[in-house]
Amino acid sequence: MADVFEKDLSSSTFFQAMVRTGIRPFYRSTHTHDGETLVDGRSVIMAGSNDYLGLSTDPRVIAAAADAVRRYGTSCSGARTLNGTLPLHGELEARLANFLGTEAAAVVTTGFQANLAIAALLGKDDIVFSDMANHASLVDGLRLGAARRVLYRHSDMDHLAELLTEADPDAAKVIVTDGMFSMGGDLCHLPELTALARRHHARLIVDGAHDIGLLGARGRGVAEHFGMHGAIDFHTGTLSKCFGSTGGILAGPAHVVDYLRHAARSILFSASMPPAALAAGVAALDIIESEPWRRDRVLNLAERLRNGLALLGYDTGQSVTPVVPVRIGEAADCARMWQKLLDEGVFTNAIGAPGVPEGQCVIRVAVQATHTDDHLARILDAFAAARRRPVAGPRSPQTTDQEPVSAR
Amino acid sequence: MADVFEKDLSSSTFFQAMVRTGIRPFYRSTHTHDGETLVDGRSVIMAGSNDYLGLSTDPRVIAAAADAVRRYGTSCSGARTLNGTLPLHGELEARLANFLGTEAAAVVTTGFQANLAIAALLGKDDIVFSDMANHASLVDGLRLGAARRVLYRHSDMDHLAELLTEADPDAAKVIVTDGMFSMGGDLCHLPELTALARRHHARLIVDGAHDIGLLGARGRGVAEHFGMHGAIDFHTGTLSKCFGSTGGILAGPAHVVDYLRHAARSILFSASMPPAALAAGVAALDIIESEPWRRDRVLNLAERLRNGLALLGYDTGQSVTPVVPVRIGEAADCARMWQKLLDEGVFTNAIGAPGVPEGQCVIRVAVQATHTDDHLARILDAFAAARRRPVAGPRSPQTTDQEPVSAR
Repeated sequence: MADVFEKDLSSSTFFQAMVRTGIRPFYRSTHTHDGETLVDGRSVIMAGSNDYLGLSTDPRVIAAAADAVRRYGTSCSGARTLNGTLPLHGELEARLANFLGTEAAAVVTTGFQANLAIAALLGKDDIVFSDMANHASLVDGLRLGAARRVLYRHSDMDHLAELLTEADPDAAKVIVTDGMFSMGGDLCHLPELTALARRHHARLIVDGAHDIGLLGARGRGVAEHFGMHGAIDFHTGTLSKCFGSTGGILAGPAHVVDYLRHAARSILFSASMPPAALAAGVAALDIIESEPWRRDRVLNLAERLRNGLALLGYDTGQSVTPVVPVRIGEAADCARMWQKLLDEGVFTNAIGAPGVPEGQCVIRVAVQATHTDDHLARILDAFAAARRRPVAGPRSPQTTDQEPVSAR
Repeated sequence: MADVFEKDLSSSTFFQAMVRTGIRPFYRSTHTHDGETLVDGRSVIMAGSNDYLGLSTDPRVIAAAADAVRRYGTSCSGARTLNGTLPLHGELEARLANFLGTEAAAVVTTGFQANLAIAALLGKDDIVFSDMANHASLVDGLRLGAARRVLYRHSDMDHLAELLTEADPDAAKVIVTDGMFSMGGDLCHLPELTALARRHHARLIVDGAHDIGLLGARGRGVAEHFGMHGAIDFHTGTLSKCFGSTGGILAGPAHVVDYLRHAARSILFSASMPPAALAAGVAALDIIESEPWRRDRVLNLAERLRNGLALLGYDTGQSVTPVVPVRIGEAADCARMWQKLLDEGVFTNAIGAPGVPEGQCVIRVAVQATHTDDHLARILDAFAAARRRPVAGPRSPQTTDQEPVSAR
């Protein structure tokens, strides 16, 4: 008898590679502070976090969160609309709108749910054009919306132009893209996107999950980076990367934000952001606004990391940000590379399908403003050592199968 | 030119009623402690929270959360799979599995996202049978899954039996229901559901968002309430109600939990539950396990509330729990009733479509274990007074339109 519980991971080449190699890159327990982390009781460099500015363990952010818990408790236990709105929600929203230069902003319980909220803007007669590399939460938001979805090849502006030209000229249109892509570390082509949006009377929604706080002189994200502050029609984003907290951001014209507040199911039907996360967000925004050196520092470290990896013969693709994907290819090779780097004292992210296309696995390295020059040198040393010798790895019947990884 | 931003709320009768009456029941700023809350600087009774056991401001829960923030920071800034797993995640998961009596449990960043995770179990050849009153997050989880969705009328077991009988006998089937319904305060018909599931070889997934922690002698939820502990194949749930925190629960057979850990997009692609929320969850579970008086207290208060409302001539539907919906009907009447109760010192929830069907608006009242007998008396006094006199409400051009509300 067929059974919905008989799902398994046998179709996942990445999972199979883990089983075959005996290497476990996922769900490893960590305890991170100032760029280092404890894995199995051993201190290693944390080079796999999206806390780019190092704010999740900043004493000021911690103090603000702990204070909010004492003052407001641990949860509102209700949706924003009903009993889930604290003065802190309004404060963070006003600060974010001011920071991003939008009429209004709304915070959502997670960044994932901020992207789901976009569904409420997508009517059945509308058409949404979506980059094929967009984040899974944005993809799911579009799937929950009623509009027709049209996918364009990752950052292929000619393809997008073609699809826009073919589309019904009378339909309401919207282009949706990540600002900074979380797997490639590359940026959307904002100048071309805004030109296409203008030409085809389409709106432009950009998910700034990774770039808000990080890019631009004042940290206002990918638009400021391109010298185009104000060019994005509507922002989504998260507080779990640069802000070192947890929560989602929606920002744009007041009537759109207000509409989503009353129409988006991921807002209406979810308990609101809790006090600790709100206060951490406000304290992080203070630091984002007052300490531009953090952005300079992490971008400088990232550039030196990419240059160092290139000298070692590694391919880091189109990365121009603190997210540096090192191309590996096959899943088993990726798992072994991950283990070698950990053995050398560096914790990275092994990424396979569905995060990246099948057979295009990467080791994702991410630097933080709190990393020292010594940390960077040790990360590069680990990649150098990983090229020279086979993996030590865990003992398993399959360890004889392990050969040095080719990074190209 | 058509524009996706030109969405508005004009089709919402509830929103229109708010505009017409000048009453604003939504997004009101509150600050709640021990059953009371500050609204516009005035202390009123909080009778609209899902914090049934009163744990979100319990000093022990607050101390645990503040301590975790100091120890682990404000966020992992990454997904569970990669850098988002702390020792605290494993601790809370082991505790929840032990509490619910399942092989395994996984925590998710929100309850909303726990329900979205169910999508990964629903293959294209499977059929999912869903109660029409299921929570929006469960509905969205099913919409994101590939299975065919078949809706049965709310708690109508004959209708469900009919639909199961008509379905392809070879397809994998699953019945999905809320344990306790958040709008009606009624319970699923678990004995009949398990019998139907057995007869038709269907799995049974129950969302225990509102009943886990609250129902059953040990607080293990709706199954324990019916003397059927162990009868549910798979649990989803939240930490934002009885646990006074924020986060989602998945619990069931180890191979299913493990599959979801590696396949559910709402887990894979979302930053993990933050330290404060985890520690609050553990501390709340300690209290749920050691202080059964809280369950007795809130259920007793709820019964007295329902009886008192019935004596006043109000209809509370099928409620048998601390969620007590008072049937009003039209949206404008509901808004006015909400305002009258607030004027009398009681904060409730005004609920219209899409939370309930159009024209069936309710005032939702919820009691907490931390409410005193005096609080209960004042809630009933407010309902009594609301029947006697017209609304004071905010001054607006439409106030002459206000007549006493009929509760039936």
